[in-house]
Amino acid sequence: MIIIGERINGMFGDVKKAIQEKDKKVIQNLATGQMKAGADYLDVNVGPAVPSAQKGDAMAWLIEAIQEATDAPICIDSPRLPDIQAALGVIKNPVMINSTQADPEQLAIYVQLAIDNDASLIALAMDKSGIPQDTDKRIELASIIVVAAMEAGLPFDRLFIDPIVLPVNAMQQQAGLVLDALSQLKLLADPPPHFVVGLSNISQGAKERDQINRTYVTMCIAAGLDAAIADPFDTEFMNSVITAELLMNKQIYSDSFLTAYRSSKGIG
Amino acid sequence: MIIIGERINGMFGDVKKAIQEKDKKVIQNLATGQMKAGADYLDVNVGPAVPSAQKGDAMAWLIEAIQEATDAPICIDSPRLPDIQAALGVIKNPVMINSTQADPEQLAIYVQLAIDNDASLIALAMDKSGIPQDTDKRIELASIIVVAAMEAGLPFDRLFIDPIVLPVNAMQQQAGLVLDALSQLKLLADPPPHFVVGLSNISQGAKERDQINRTYVTMCIAAGLDAAIADPFDTEFMNSVITAELLMNKQIYSDSFLTAYRSSKGIG
Repeated sequence: MIIIGERINGMFGDVKKAIQEKDKKVIQNLATGQMKAGADYLDVNVGPAVPSAQKGDAMAWLIEAIQEATDAPICIDSPRLPDIQAALGVIKNPVMINSTQADPEQLAIYVQLAIDNDASLIALAMDKSGIPQDTDKRIELASIIVVAAMEAGLPFDRLFIDPIVLPVNAMQQQAGLVLDALSQLKLLADPPPHFVVGLSNISQGAKERDQINRTYVTMCIAAGLDAAIADPFDTEFMNSVITAELLMNKQIYSDSFLTAYRSSKGIG
Repeated sequence: MIIIGERINGMFGDVKKAIQEKDKKVIQNLATGQMKAGADYLDVNVGPAVPSAQKGDAMAWLIEAIQEATDAPICIDSPRLPDIQAALGVIKNPVMINSTQADPEQLAIYVQLAIDNDASLIALAMDKSGIPQDTDKRIELASIIVVAAMEAGLPFDRLFIDPIVLPVNAMQQQAGLVLDALSQLKLLADPPPHFVVGLSNISQGAKERDQINRTYVTMCIAAGLDAAIADPFDTEFMNSVITAELLMNKQIYSDSFLTAYRSSKGIG
């Protein structure tokens, strides 16, 4: 499982404040802490911390702060191309671009950007018309993404398709439809691309968020998920991920499988 | 989710001792306790508590003891037909017969037994040649079971097919194959029969048993499982089941979904 640590995001109070006050230490602690807790990538998102005009600069500052502390791979998270370009301008570490939608014009630009920067790319199974409400539309958009990557020459091991998870408290039937989509999507190509979700979306606005997150990620792993933007500091979530992967035969069983997994990733 | 409480089984030390000493109170407390914790059926299995020749009597004694304390539905669990018949001789409550294999002769006897006793029936997707090692064989045996039930007139809402879960520490690839089988089996008929597993088998001999059990049941629910022989006293397991069913849209979301589910089942 590829864990993309979600905590460096301006929607969190501590990160918002750190961006506004240019407090590198807070960001660096979140960077090294998430890697120690099991993250493979660090998601970096300015969020609502600063006005739009300053987001590119804030993104570059965040990345430079992180790079002083760790060479962890970074997932540049912004809906705006200029902010992603600002990030790419200062980045030294391996990189993932998060994200493009499936509209052909935007997709062409982002796939080329990923190729030009030796980057991985998250592509959302949604387009101008919005978020798919059914499985067929998710499959159709994922197919468009797969074809675009194939034609441009982006290897599938650098392509992450996101079927778009929605809050269970608002759109309850969507959680199961995303599982259906994942089950079918893994048959799209052999070997398939990666599949990723923004896990916390499932519990947005709900109670028992940790319980919902770790239960849903387990179900998604059974359906074929192999990456998630999530909180590696949540130990029960990490235990669920490790155990689900064990049950999918992706880690060899040993009595100490929980600690064995953590040791293999250097998790402290 | 239909929870078949596993605790009244002579393989557990307290139950073995209670059977040998004819101590009704221990059995009755396990019966009422499991129902309060969320069981829908009480599995009753003499196990290794007494020699084979005394198992029918022990089974009848267990059931009479339970019936003095609760009218909970009972799941008669024995590989031996005479013990099941001994149980049926004294039973007053709704009943499930656990279990038959998929060999046509045995299947015919047990399907008829279920029909004659207004009982539900657990049928194992295995036969004389042993436990299937692949998905195709599981599907083939399940198809034989479904056809036998249909031809004899056992309604599918009283048929529970068990794809046979094996210990992850010994046969690690089987956990995923059972998930594959469940995903395909739910398409066998519309509406489909029930699907049940003996959940504790997955963690037999392993460490972190509760973690493995609750993770695997969540994955099975995503694949279509709707019944499990399991321990309702394991609160984290029950929370996982409730949350997985919420995510499958089988319970309407409310902020208090964990307690709402328990209240709806009268769980104390």
